[in-house]
Amino acid sequence: MESHNAVYPGSFDPITFGHLDIVRRAARIFDTVVVAVAEHAGKNTLFTLAEREELAALSCRELANVRVMSFSGLLIDFVRKQNARAIIRGLRAVSDFEYEFSMSLMNSHLAPEIETVLLPTSVGHSFISSSMIKEVFSLGGDIKETIPACVLEALRKKLH
Amino acid sequence: MESHNAVYPGSFDPITFGHLDIVRRAARIFDTVVVAVAEHAGKNTLFTLAEREELAALSCRELANVRVMSFSGLLIDFVRKQNARAIIRGLRAVSDFEYEFSMSLMNSHLAPEIETVLLPTSVGHSFISSSMIKEVFSLGGDIKETIPACVLEALRKKLH
Amino acid sequence: MESHNAVYPGSFDPITFGHLDIVRRAARIFDTVVVAVAEHAGKNTLFTLAEREELAALSCRELANVRVMSFSGLLIDFVRKQNARAIIRGLRAVSDFEYEFSMSLMNSHLAPEIETVLLPTSVGHSFISSSMIKEVFSLGGDIKETIPACVLEALRKKLH
Amino acid sequence: MESHNAVYPGSFDPITFGHLDIVRRAARIFDTVVVAVAEHAGKNTLFTLAEREELAALSCRELANVRVMSFSGLLIDFVRKQNARAIIRGLRAVSDFEYEFSMSLMNSHLAPEIETVLLPTSVGHSFISSSMIKEVFSLGGDIKETIPACVLEALRKKLH
Amino acid sequence: MESHNAVYPGSFDPITFGHLDIVRRAARIFDTVVVAVAEHAGKNTLFTLAEREELAALSCRELANVRVMSFSGLLIDFVRKQNARAIIRGLRAVSDFEYEFSMSLMNSHLAPEIETVLLPTSVGHSFISSSMIKEVFSLGGDIKETIPACVLEALRKKLH
Amino acid sequence: MESHNAVYPGSFDPITFGHLDIVRRAARIFDTVVVAVAEHAGKNTLFTLAEREELAALSCRELANVRVMSFSGLLIDFVRKQNARAIIRGLRAVSDFEYEFSMSLMNSHLAPEIETVLLPTSVGHSFISSSMIKEVFSLGGDIKETIPACVLEALRKKLH
Repeated sequence: MESHNAVYPGSFDPITFGHLDIVRRAARIFDTVVVAVAEHAGKNTLFTLAEREELAALSCRELANVRVMSFSGLLIDFVRKQNARAIIRGLRAVSDFEYEFSMSLMNSHLAPEIETVLLPTSVGHSFISSSMIKEVFSLGGDIKETIPACVLEALRKKLH
Repeated sequence: MESHNAVYPGSFDPITFGHLDIVRRAARIFDTVVVAVAEHAGKNTLFTLAEREELAALSCRELANVRVMSFSGLLIDFVRKQNARAIIRGLRAVSDFEYEFSMSLMNSHLAPEIETVLLPTSVGHSFISSSMIKEVFSLGGDIKETIPACVLEALRKKLH
Repeated sequence: MESHNAVYPGSFDPITFGHLDIVRRAARIFDTVVVAVAEHAGKNTLFTLAEREELAALSCRELANVRVMSFSGLLIDFVRKQNARAIIRGLRAVSDFEYEFSMSLMNSHLAPEIETVLLPTSVGHSFISSSMIKEVFSLGGDIKETIPACVLEALRKKLH
Repeated sequence: MESHNAVYPGSFDPITFGHLDIVRRAARIFDTVVVAVAEHAGKNTLFTLAEREELAALSCRELANVRVMSFSGLLIDFVRKQNARAIIRGLRAVSDFEYEFSMSLMNSHLAPEIETVLLPTSVGHSFISSSMIKEVFSLGGDIKETIPACVLEALRKKLH
Repeated sequence: MESHNAVYPGSFDPITFGHLDIVRRAARIFDTVVVAVAEHAGKNTLFTLAEREELAALSCRELANVRVMSFSGLLIDFVRKQNARAIIRGLRAVSDFEYEFSMSLMNSHLAPEIETVLLPTSVGHSFISSSMIKEVFSLGGDIKETIPACVLEALRKKLH
Repeated sequence: MESHNAVYPGSFDPITFGHLDIVRRAARIFDTVVVAVAEHAGKNTLFTLAEREELAALSCRELANVRVMSFSGLLIDFVRKQNARAIIRGLRAVSDFEYEFSMSLMNSHLAPEIETVLLPTSVGHSFISSSMIKEVFSLGGDIKETIPACVLEALRKKLH
């Protein structure tokens, strides 16, 4: 019997209810879901790698078959080490789609045995992105319905 | 231990290498994949339901964990009967994406426990659609690299 | 003081909560909103013009500054007759956007004094389209959260 | 010295200033441009093949290096017979783009030596499509700035 | 009788004929339009806030029901202070659409009583963006047909 | 007899098989293709202008009617100096399309006699972008099938 593990990579800077929606849904399809916090996020992050990993772990602690880890280097190398066969990505919009599509083509070129699985966001989470949340919060907007309480607390400490 | 079954619905009029690429990839992620040929295809089909089901079955016969069935009525009712928890859909392009997105939102409204899983098409299959194949074949084009031999044979009988 | 009237045209075959969301929001911006049911819907409709107009009127009866009318001929001629200066259209997705964009360019070519105003759909209504509702209903799906009660009743009479 | 011929295929039902804009621009890049009126337009046409060809020929008569022909069968077979090496297509919008993209992939699969060349429409022609013009004209709209005089005359005879 | 005010926010770095087209059209629909120059433009601006505000004011001075103001903080707080009920945004393309859509969802989450109103750009202004104008001007291109004379003068002083 | 020259501009940081596919296809349509390496790439480049030009020249040396040059200033001024009448751009995806579309509108505003010609990428090259290649290479991924050997060597020297 083969494993049914999946990796859900991202920068999670910070993790939002939009991310958690994808995590929960992936956790219903796969035996184990590894939330993989990217050290190399390709941009300056507000939170450190340790902070991003901790907030993700706190937010996922009640999901039995979900683990949070950080990774550096190529995603497909990490996926192979986890004995996973699928990369999970959430899709909100056409612009997401094009980026995810070309990433999935590159990853499938590098590792043909690994599949990219795209999960459309739930109604109600499509407007939630980490960057928009950080911007709105920094301007004084109320974003408590878009992020876990521990993330709101961390944003307060970081930005005020 | 829960089941990991998925349903891959479509009109399959006829099944193509593009469809089979998605079937094979889904079969690596899920325990069982049911290729679900829709009786109600929402349009006039070239092949009858029995023909579409037979061609799909012939094309999938070497895939051990894939079954081909036909269905009528609501897709989510069929998915529930199969004890499946995921609907598989292939994604070629932005226009696919929007249609699949709104279908997935409707299905998730009707059956919140079932997830829609979108698999991006492989490079090399992105230009293959059943409708384009039928049009090109009817005009005398060589489409043998886009469909299984049994489908080519069936197209010849049907259209010449 | 000039009038602030707007026309919200469509086939409304039948009117849905998605349409009503746009109507309500337009009614907060404009003095009067005319829901304009197109006789010439450019396609076969399930409901007659009289039925579509009646269902729209029933659904809008509690909105004080909303009137429901039917029209034939060019939209811009109807808009002018209503002494309106804006055409309201709802936007769900990129495919909507392109169609609406080219329609608005054509209308602005025909009637430069009339503006097209696009309102993005609310979260929660983006998956609702008349055609999807009719399809799901005809297959036995529960769509009562997507349409007014009078429309559900009319669908039952029409399709069962 | 090789030929620099291109084929601009379409249903031209009827030809518009949008089409003529593409023809003129292609005629500046290529030695000869063949406007190829498709017999098999994939849909019911308002004008017959002979009418569509005649209106296109009338509209292009002052363009020295442009010829109008009709064709049936596969486009690439016609392109090869014309000793052409490029297929010209106009691009108005994202939805055009996706269709043209998949057609170009299919054509490049069938005839790798033939290139598809996409020309973006000029500002001012992006809202002109044959189908919208026919609809607006049939409803009484003034579309004389979007089509040649001979086409307007033909529309009047056909639709009134 | 309620007010019909709208706010048109942006960085206006600098204001262009594309922006002014939107301002003029909004001014025909609403009683008052406030052009709201964002202090926090989310990026480095070429012009200071005072310069951007002054250039916008100069360019709008002949529009009787248009005022130019600057704002900082959350847009919806500014909109509320202006007693406005609509946010105006111009739409040029699909990429604009997606950004505007997610912004409008976030704003409607933060302030359900405020509507986002999207106006499609006029033919002839769809290629005008502040960033492209600055780039073309800095390379010596002639962009005088895309911006008011006062903006051209300001660009000359700033960049030469 | 007029010239049939085209310019293919880009930052080529570094040149990839995706670029070379476009170069080869343009070289079959036009008499001469000038690969124009932009000094002003609008971003920080990994390779210097001289390196980018040299890698492009090495990669194109077997294409008889292709020349590699660098340019600064406005693209259309360079195109005019080359006595060319077409700008070649490759298209991979919808996001490319929108950017290219607005660039082509601006260029056609600045130089109406120059046409922008968009070539869709070949199947198999659609996932290749210079930026993704650099990122994957820097993380240790095997990208030798996406770039010429000389470029791979240059990347090794630059990044290790």
